Amino acid sequence: VNNPNVQPRTLGELAHLLGGAVIGDEQLLICGIAKIDEAGHHDLTFLTNPKYAKKLTASKAGALLANPGVTWDRPVLQVKDPYVALGKLLDLFYPQPEVVKSGIHPTAVLEESVTLGVNVRIGALCWLGHDCQIGDNVTLYPRVVVYPGVSIGEDSLIHAGVIIRENVQIGKRVIIQNGAVIGSDGFGFAADAGEFRKIPQVGTVIIEDDVEIGANTTIDRATMGKTVIHRGTKLDNLIQVAHNVEIGENTVIAAQTGISGSTKIGSQCRIAGQVGFVGHITIGDRVMIGAQSGVPHSIPDGEIYSGYPAMPHADWLKLTAYLKRLPELFQKVKEFEKKIP
Amino acid sequence: VNNPNVQPRTLGELAHLLGGAVIGDEQLLICGIAKIDEAGHHDLTFLTNPKYAKKLTASKAGALLANPGVTWDRPVLQVKDPYVALGKLLDLFYPQPEVVKSGIHPTAVLEESVTLGVNVRIGALCWLGHDCQIGDNVTLYPRVVVYPGVSIGEDSLIHAGVIIRENVQIGKRVIIQNGAVIGSDGFGFAADAGEFRKIPQVGTVIIEDDVEIGANTTIDRATMGKTVIHRGTKLDNLIQVAHNVEIGENTVIAAQTGISGSTKIGSQCRIAGQVGFVGHITIGDRVMIGAQSGVPHSIPDGEIYSGYPAMPHADWLKLTAYLKRLPELFQKVKEFEKKIP
Amino acid sequence: VNNPNVQPRTLGELAHLLGGAVIGDEQLLICGIAKIDEAGHHDLTFLTNPKYAKKLTASKAGALLANPGVTWDRPVLQVKDPYVALGKLLDLFYPQPEVVKSGIHPTAVLEESVTLGVNVRIGALCWLGHDCQIGDNVTLYPRVVVYPGVSIGEDSLIHAGVIIRENVQIGKRVIIQNGAVIGSDGFGFAADAGEFRKIPQVGTVIIEDDVEIGANTTIDRATMGKTVIHRGTKLDNLIQVAHNVEIGENTVIAAQTGISGSTKIGSQCRIAGQVGFVGHITIGDRVMIGAQSGVPHSIPDGEIYSGYPAMPHADWLKLTAYLKRLPELFQKVKEFEKKIP
Repeated sequence: VNNPNVQPRTLGELAHLLGGAVIGDEQLLICGIAKIDEAGHHDLTFLTNPKYAKKLTASKAGALLANPGVTWDRPVLQVKDPYVALGKLLDLFYPQPEVVKSGIHPTAVLEESVTLGVNVRIGALCWLGHDCQIGDNVTLYPRVVVYPGVSIGEDSLIHAGVIIRENVQIGKRVIIQNGAVIGSDGFGFAADAGEFRKIPQVGTVIIEDDVEIGANTTIDRATMGKTVIHRGTKLDNLIQVAHNVEIGENTVIAAQTGISGSTKIGSQCRIAGQVGFVGHITIGDRVMIGAQSGVPHSIPDGEIYSGYPAMPHADWLKLTAYLKRLPELFQKVKEFEKKIP
Repeated sequence: VNNPNVQPRTLGELAHLLGGAVIGDEQLLICGIAKIDEAGHHDLTFLTNPKYAKKLTASKAGALLANPGVTWDRPVLQVKDPYVALGKLLDLFYPQPEVVKSGIHPTAVLEESVTLGVNVRIGALCWLGHDCQIGDNVTLYPRVVVYPGVSIGEDSLIHAGVIIRENVQIGKRVIIQNGAVIGSDGFGFAADAGEFRKIPQVGTVIIEDDVEIGANTTIDRATMGKTVIHRGTKLDNLIQVAHNVEIGENTVIAAQTGISGSTKIGSQCRIAGQVGFVGHITIGDRVMIGAQSGVPHSIPDGEIYSGYPAMPHADWLKLTAYLKRLPELFQKVKEFEKKIP
Repeated sequence: VNNPNVQPRTLGELAHLLGGAVIGDEQLLICGIAKIDEAGHHDLTFLTNPKYAKKLTASKAGALLANPGVTWDRPVLQVKDPYVALGKLLDLFYPQPEVVKSGIHPTAVLEESVTLGVNVRIGALCWLGHDCQIGDNVTLYPRVVVYPGVSIGEDSLIHAGVIIRENVQIGKRVIIQNGAVIGSDGFGFAADAGEFRKIPQVGTVIIEDDVEIGANTTIDRATMGKTVIHRGTKLDNLIQVAHNVEIGENTVIAAQTGISGSTKIGSQCRIAGQVGFVGHITIGDRVMIGAQSGVPHSIPDGEIYSGYPAMPHADWLKLTAYLKRLPELFQKVKEFEKKIP
């Protein structure tokens, strides 16, 4: 799909940029990137899900981005990792428009002792409490709230409606989608003669470099100490991260998952959507967990778990297959009963 | 319950307005509408859930709104569809107060090239990016954020705290409840040597006419192309709609349901709460899905599914009945073992 | 962990404050409170989860807060209820900083006829609709939205980004975390020839005294009448409370739970995370419900339920144990089949 503000490129130029090779016409002009069924003659298309391969024949795409070895009846741009290349091409053909101008919008409210780096952009109607530190090249979209004592590392991008609570530390190149809340009070109460007394939540939250946090996700501050999201981890929308949780590096968690208090999740994990973790457990590194699983205990490194309650994925597959045959089993036992009095 | 700002009406007048008939005193004065156990002598009550029929005798209601054929020891206003009539009566007796005055509040911030229709209401502390188009009679409550390039169709009503991201298109008569986020980045990353590189989400979201979206619901923009909510569909609170999802016309989805990327849901579906759909599947038209179901594959038109993993509802009912008898089955097999060595 | 703004206290002083007793050096100076593995020589530590008792030996803590009867090789501050005492000590050593100054920030917008108590704090960029009543000592953090006709009781604390809709009543000492929405429209539509007509939601929400509501939680207003959260109840983040729900006193509900319309939940209940309740049911007092349970029917007082669908917890434990042995059962029946033709 054509972006009128961006100049077309030849396939050869794109191959040069990405370190790839063209099989076919290097001079073919590419004006945009598009999905198989939406691409036109001057679009480059791609295949990240093999499910859609059968749609290739009917596609109007001018060329295909694919792994080395893949050929087609039209030009192919072969690269080592097409999905990573796709990200680079989207940045090239569809650069993000400038929404927030450089400087501080006159309607933003900054309390005393706010430290600002160079080239900071602070949108309309933002509020920054006292003693905040905003790093170089940080963008706050309109209507961001930053409580006192917060620091935000350089090149981070905070979308409209985000709220960052007191003393939270945000790393570099962090992206926070709209409406996320970082540092709300953890859910801690002491039962006292049938009523509940609030346990003050005096800890904080640390969001390390290169983390992305989804829309309307909530990350509670620690009771004492810190809730930590380590470097490179990506959280989707509407996720709940309770107080004192720690999530390792480069872990990916899909929408609506909930992690109870003091649970630790390792690095390089892949957690699907709507999963629930009880509190005070430890999930190892490189663990994969299927959608809607309910995780009641710790899981060692490298395991794949699914189900409610969660179990090794192979067991869960076996169990669900057996469950389908349960009526048949009851029938068989009934027949035995007739034969054996 | 009496609204002091609205004049009472006789049952006869109401019957005329709704195209219904009165069985009993047409001159009975009705001052308000109320639930069975809260209604007084000058309230009209109703019966939309038969579970509550036994409460009628003890009710103090002056009259009953019901289907043709229903009688009572007090006057009955008979109409073809009492629930639709109830909606009209509530509009009549409890008109929405004017919260936002006509015009643009002086604290709202509008960037350049915003186009406004007639009779637009823009509340305090709103922010509208450049090149937005706001249709006739649109109301933005205070503190709405509209990124650049958005269009909002006539008669739409956007509640406080809503965020509409760049280039999103909103139809006519759309209602968006507080805190919803429309057009946040989809959750797309390419694995690259153990780290994740963001795939720019350069698509958009289309919300068609007569859609309603619940509080704090999140609808992600497409990676490329569009995420679409078709005409007349109603989404409840805290729902997650991932990138490139498409939801058909007049479908109803209850709270906390999550729909993964590129999944298509048909028209006239009824989806209960806390349901999860995996990505890249197709749900037909007129499908009904029970609460908390986990849907791992496509479902044809007209089916009723439940369970985790989701299966035809009748199978799920049978399975849960068998599960209750599982201890008994184990016991029987144990007894066989004794008899058959 | 040391808070430089707070003076150290001797163990003896703390015992006096809390009505406890010191076993060991009463003159030991305490500078802060910390978790077992983070405490230093001048920190008091505590043991609320017995799982962590084995960490005591390695701890560097100067003293331990514990039940009467507990001794250690270092001083022990014995109190009747250590968890309640912990809350008091955290308030003492880490008092909340003043974020919002007394008075009304000049960027806040107040419509006509707003009534303000004494010592009210209204932060930057707040909006209050006409005819609101704000009690004594209430704090609205920056960017709170209050629709017309709302009342907020004395000493309540409303965090940034909260939205309180028209006519909602908030009690005294209520705490609402960031991004929560109180009083959004309930999800009510009448099917009318294949389309849905909105049923106006003309009721309201009552939040009684001492309630706490978590971040991005949504509480819908009643269709008619009221949605009620009774005194002392605590709701975690991302919870959905539908129209006309009623939740009793001193009930605790964990994150991401959803309660469908008109359901009543009793007092003193403990509901775990990601639980779903269907509509129009009644949950008794002192009921406990396990994480991710799906509750399809009413539950009497004092019961403990778990599972999907929810059943008495003991039955659920038994069922999940049997499910693990299901493959073995199939195997046995297969062997019978060989023996009995």
